[in-house]
Amino acid sequence: MKFKRTERIGAIVKILSDNPNKIYTLSYFTEKFNAAKSTISEDLLVVKNVFEKLELGKVITISGAAGGVKYIPKTSKSENEEFLMDLCKKISDPSRLLSGGFLYLIDLIYDPSIASKIGKIFASNIDYSEADYVVTMETKGIPMALMTAKAMNLPLVIIRKDIKVSEGPTLSMTYVSGKSKVESMSLPRKALKPGSKVILIDDFMRGGGTIKGMMNLMNEFGAEVIGSGVFISTTTPEDKMVQDYISLIQLDVDGEKISVEPNLKTFRDEYRNIEIEENEEIERFVEEDESLFDEE
Amino acid sequence: MKFKRTERIGAIVKILSDNPNKIYTLSYFTEKFNAAKSTISEDLLVVKNVFEKLELGKVITISGAAGGVKYIPKTSKSENEEFLMDLCKKISDPSRLLSGGFLYLIDLIYDPSIASKIGKIFASNIDYSEADYVVTMETKGIPMALMTAKAMNLPLVIIRKDIKVSEGPTLSMTYVSGKSKVESMSLPRKALKPGSKVILIDDFMRGGGTIKGMMNLMNEFGAEVIGSGVFISTTTPEDKMVQDYISLIQLDVDGEKISVEPNLKTFRDEYRNIEIEENEEIERFVEEDESLFDEE
Repeated sequence: MKFKRTERIGAIVKILSDNPNKIYTLSYFTEKFNAAKSTISEDLLVVKNVFEKLELGKVITISGAAGGVKYIPKTSKSENEEFLMDLCKKISDPSRLLSGGFLYLIDLIYDPSIASKIGKIFASNIDYSEADYVVTMETKGIPMALMTAKAMNLPLVIIRKDIKVSEGPTLSMTYVSGKSKVESMSLPRKALKPGSKVILIDDFMRGGGTIKGMMNLMNEFGAEVIGSGVFISTTTPEDKMVQDYISLIQLDVDGEKISVEPNLKTFRDEYRNIEIEENEEIERFVEEDESLFDEE
Repeated sequence: MKFKRTERIGAIVKILSDNPNKIYTLSYFTEKFNAAKSTISEDLLVVKNVFEKLELGKVITISGAAGGVKYIPKTSKSENEEFLMDLCKKISDPSRLLSGGFLYLIDLIYDPSIASKIGKIFASNIDYSEADYVVTMETKGIPMALMTAKAMNLPLVIIRKDIKVSEGPTLSMTYVSGKSKVESMSLPRKALKPGSKVILIDDFMRGGGTIKGMMNLMNEFGAEVIGSGVFISTTTPEDKMVQDYISLIQLDVDGEKISVEPNLKTFRDEYRNIEIEENEEIERFVEEDESLFDEE
């Protein structure tokens, strides 16, 4: 099948956008569109411009044997602010306050568009260049953790609260949850490869007991936690059981009063995990670098 | 900011593709790209071609006061077959068999790319034109249910297994699970609007007890189940407690032998929920239908 230039560009955008952080070789596109490498290189320059003009992320080239082109989702600071301000407005609706000081939030955090956007924000502000997995604990954090894993192109691991042995040998341990209650968490032995590096994602942090417990569990698996993100953290207690995390929204519930605001200091201006990022790189594909793209 | 034709097309593909089933007005694009309606209409024809040539879905126009253009994800029968055959090969790996006849599958069903693809397949084969929610039960079905909800542009509702009252007044009931065990499920009163129509999604069906239980719970909420999809169903028992569902993969575990194959009869050749689907529709935008696109 023959594709027009405009069609190729649309198609490349669709493929890259649907598969963040997945490397595609130049050959993949030349075969798919039955086009010359020089043609595809020109197309890729346009695609790169589309993403940058719309501030939707970066298309970068990677050299080396496993080289190719990939799309890195990236959110802009102003876009994050707008999105989170809007979310904060929804969260602070007094009708969300339940007896016991709980907030009804599941309609928001289970919403696929919101979860997807949160995932992209985590992927823009946590360095996952060395990560092997995104890890979360059931249940409410799963949608945003899945979308984070999707943006990062990493597998998702879900820690269960009850002790489940139907997934083979399982490591279980206790932790102290937000309400100073001793609870259990468990994870199948097979869920993580030894020596893994992981990113922890959770929906809510009060004292930090859950994230702390997840860190201890990762320790038992011989895994290293290289980044943690929570969607909402409370202003009190100020001293959390963990220090090194990012939080998108800060919340304070005092009686009937809900104070909630984006944690703007969290956000980077630029996503920094960029190996090479030069227009010339794509141009040079054809001239000197052809061999890199011969295998898929 | 000015965009070139190729850039506009790339950008429109990205916007539509990231937001399946969301309606965008012509004005949305004319404002975003600072371009004439006739220009955007031509762009939309190209975009439509991209999706159709690559068999990635359909871009359709909707007339009426809430009119505009939207992208409907659609998978092709051959693509589904290839994807599911590959998945079946992985599932039938003998090392997945655990004692007790369980299969280790969480590395597959938690994988964001696989979950995303499963979601698109459900969205291509279940009619959700009237649906208000996608409903699942924690935990293993959540990733695929979220991706289904994303493809359908519907909110996700997660039924909890334990009785959680931290989400306000909650309706709880018992059901008989696959292992003939009585278990409980619960859902906050606020989770579904009265008179809702829902799609049920779950990862695994043996006897159908869980889906049956979910149906009963939906009944208690005054909600109507208009479609059900399970990822894997077992060949035995042949008589399930529910009849009207689709299943993507059929599984039979007999001692050490795992038989697994795609349930090809499930798949439609074409996704049928298309209101209008004519190239001319987009062309006519400018000539006679401008008023429809003046509001966003």
